[in-house]
Amino acid sequence: MREFLKQNIKKHISLSDNETDQFCNLFHQKLIKKKSFLLQQGEICKFEGFVTKGLFRVYYNDKNGFDQILYFAAENWWITDIDSFTNASPSQLFIQALEDSVVLLISKDDKEFAYKNLPQIEKLFRVMTQKTHVALQRRMINNLSKPAEERYMEFIEKYPQLTQRLSNIQIAAYLGITNVFLSNIRKKIAHK
Amino acid sequence: MREFLKQNIKKHISLSDNETDQFCNLFHQKLIKKKSFLLQQGEICKFEGFVTKGLFRVYYNDKNGFDQILYFAAENWWITDIDSFTNASPSQLFIQALEDSVVLLISKDDKEFAYKNLPQIEKLFRVMTQKTHVALQRRMINNLSKPAEERYMEFIEKYPQLTQRLSNIQIAAYLGITNVFLSNIRKKIAHK
Repeated sequence: MREFLKQNIKKHISLSDNETDQFCNLFHQKLIKKKSFLLQQGEICKFEGFVTKGLFRVYYNDKNGFDQILYFAAENWWITDIDSFTNASPSQLFIQALEDSVVLLISKDDKEFAYKNLPQIEKLFRVMTQKTHVALQRRMINNLSKPAEERYMEFIEKYPQLTQRLSNIQIAAYLGITNVFLSNIRKKIAHK
Repeated sequence: MREFLKQNIKKHISLSDNETDQFCNLFHQKLIKKKSFLLQQGEICKFEGFVTKGLFRVYYNDKNGFDQILYFAAENWWITDIDSFTNASPSQLFIQALEDSVVLLISKDDKEFAYKNLPQIEKLFRVMTQKTHVALQRRMINNLSKPAEERYMEFIEKYPQLTQRLSNIQIAAYLGITNVFLSNIRKKIAHK
């Protein structure tokens, strides 16, 4: 399972095999059953996770009680609540497995250890955080600047495999529309 | 003007005076008149900026033609479109001065030079990007999970000086509400 993590690291930085092992050994594997939670609102997030199997949704409850999905995370994605993890504050987020899943988790102390002893890890997380930030900024801008149909088309083009694994309910929640509205969009596209 | 930048750096990393100068000398000062743009939609963002004087708004046009403000940036804040800057893609954002302003700008090449020659700079931008990301995530969650009145109260408590410098129109746009609705909130608060 650590092979996925090693490949992910190699994409961004050049570590020796020994250093890679040293870093990867700081992670602990955790199995999460479908529908179980890796994090719940109110808890302090004590991990950064790397998904090696399965699928998660990261979401929060809006003021009307609806689940608002920030993002999905499948294999090779990183998951955490960076706010709660960094500031040791109660999380506003839920991280729930949508399939039986496996994650590799690193604690705050072990991450600090890595920053001190393997300076390249600074670069790894600088680049990762930049990418995550770009994704969130795009999502925020697109939500208000593009109609739902266009956002749906972009989603299925960008994540064809994810689309197969997600229920209509999850995709609709991600797009911030009702299930009925998503069905209408699908019908409209099918007739084109 | 570079003193602000030096103090900002010192908060996050330990560089020698020599290294600090070396890094700060990579920045070029730019004066921006009130209402002028540092970046406009469609342009490629070729800088990361540090505000030493003045005030900016970073915003985009939504699908109804309204300005949606991502954030304000006054003295000691960093400004860029990280998406456009990183990926050399046309920006969706406008960065406009709301007062006569001064910024220190660093180019992509000079930032890469700093990463290579002053490894601590990786940490500086890892921490900065993390903070920016936390701020955006909080903003996205709060927009949908807290009513406008609560968000207004939080804004004026967190940024009392900024509140003094901003027009009601700008604050209303930041909160995603109309000017009239903001006036009503203010009247309600005054009567409490």
